[in-house]
Amino acid sequence: MHDHSEGHFTGGETVRDIVIGMADGLTVPFALAAGLAGAIASSRLVLTAGGAEIAAGSIAMGLGGFLAARGDAEHYRAERAREQREVVEVPDRERKEVSDLLVEYGLDPIDAEKAAMALSKNEEKWIDFMMRFELGLEEPDPRRALRSGLTIAGAYVVGGIVPLVPYFFIPHATSALPWSAGVTMAALLVFGLLKGRAAGISPVQSAVQTVIVGGLAAAAAFALARAFS
Amino acid sequence: MHDHSEGHFTGGETVRDIVIGMADGLTVPFALAAGLAGAIASSRLVLTAGGAEIAAGSIAMGLGGFLAARGDAEHYRAERAREQREVVEVPDRERKEVSDLLVEYGLDPIDAEKAAMALSKNEEKWIDFMMRFELGLEEPDPRRALRSGLTIAGAYVVGGIVPLVPYFFIPHATSALPWSAGVTMAALLVFGLLKGRAAGISPVQSAVQTVIVGGLAAAAAFALARAFS
Repeated sequence: MHDHSEGHFTGGETVRDIVIGMADGLTVPFALAAGLAGAIASSRLVLTAGGAEIAAGSIAMGLGGFLAARGDAEHYRAERAREQREVVEVPDRERKEVSDLLVEYGLDPIDAEKAAMALSKNEEKWIDFMMRFELGLEEPDPRRALRSGLTIAGAYVVGGIVPLVPYFFIPHATSALPWSAGVTMAALLVFGLLKGRAAGISPVQSAVQTVIVGGLAAAAAFALARAFS
Repeated sequence: MHDHSEGHFTGGETVRDIVIGMADGLTVPFALAAGLAGAIASSRLVLTAGGAEIAAGSIAMGLGGFLAARGDAEHYRAERAREQREVVEVPDRERKEVSDLLVEYGLDPIDAEKAAMALSKNEEKWIDFMMRFELGLEEPDPRRALRSGLTIAGAYVVGGIVPLVPYFFIPHATSALPWSAGVTMAALLVFGLLKGRAAGISPVQSAVQTVIVGGLAAAAAFALARAFS
């Protein structure tokens, strides 16, 4: 029925989760490694810190995503229970809310009241209507929480390994850093292009933005680590 | 008019941004420092890595939040422009979409058509109606992007400094670690309680969850850093 609305939903949440995880995964471990390479000579120590950061970051973000999705589901259930109660306890007030809403959008009061009356005939559908149109809430998919958490964490790990690869092969951290920067910027560029395409915005603009975010974060971490040591 | 809906909006976005930033800020730098304290003796190096992580993490998350909010605003504008076009080019189809929507919720077809006809009289309001009720999109506040980015980054920095404080005072990292763990768990507990209260869910459940997330992330980072070294 509304193809453009549904077009945004198909696979959109998985793509969004991959983007969330990978954006940070490509940025933070790279920036941390770059920052440390400015202060510590050994690639081994940089890898230790980078590996620890990937573990910590992926778990924190993955669990964060899991809990956020579960929170959305709980919020939906709580609001739905509240509407359910109100529909039973104060049906006239609820009907008036619906007709006021329709009047706001240009219906004349008599038609709005008639429409609200018709909507309120089927209690379940009436509650559905208010959940979606008054509160703007859609029923979340119950399996989403786990999938969302795992997707975010996995994307973080995949993204985070990329900038560390050069430190595996080059023992001196300062020599590995330019390779890490090159590999990461290339990955950010590709990621930005794909992200832009998925979001329906300009891929080039998205790629440039993504590279700038990564570069800024890395430069700040580098400067800070230098200042510390 | 709909107080319960508006109750969720007042200040809700700022609280949400603080929660996003602080949840990761209290978790990732702590876990990284704990992981490194398992592999590196010097608190100074742990602080260097922790400081670099706070800089990288806060900038990556803050810019991520900034760009996400800007993306929402762009998405809204693009969808609105599309509805605007469709209202001009295929008004009958758009009207039919609205009346089908109302029929789905229990209006009889004749009333639904009448309501759709009335709604379509004022073009701006008609588009508003479809944006909100068909696509479920609310117009984002244009100043939100910058505020959101700064709030997330600031919360990350504040959260991230907490677990590092003991490493300032105790030169041997392994001795500082239990203090860092204690301070951070206490902070997570308080943060979880406040977060639960703000979200309207059980503060105790929220506090326990928050401490578990932090603890798991830290344990994984610790194990990984040990395995590396």
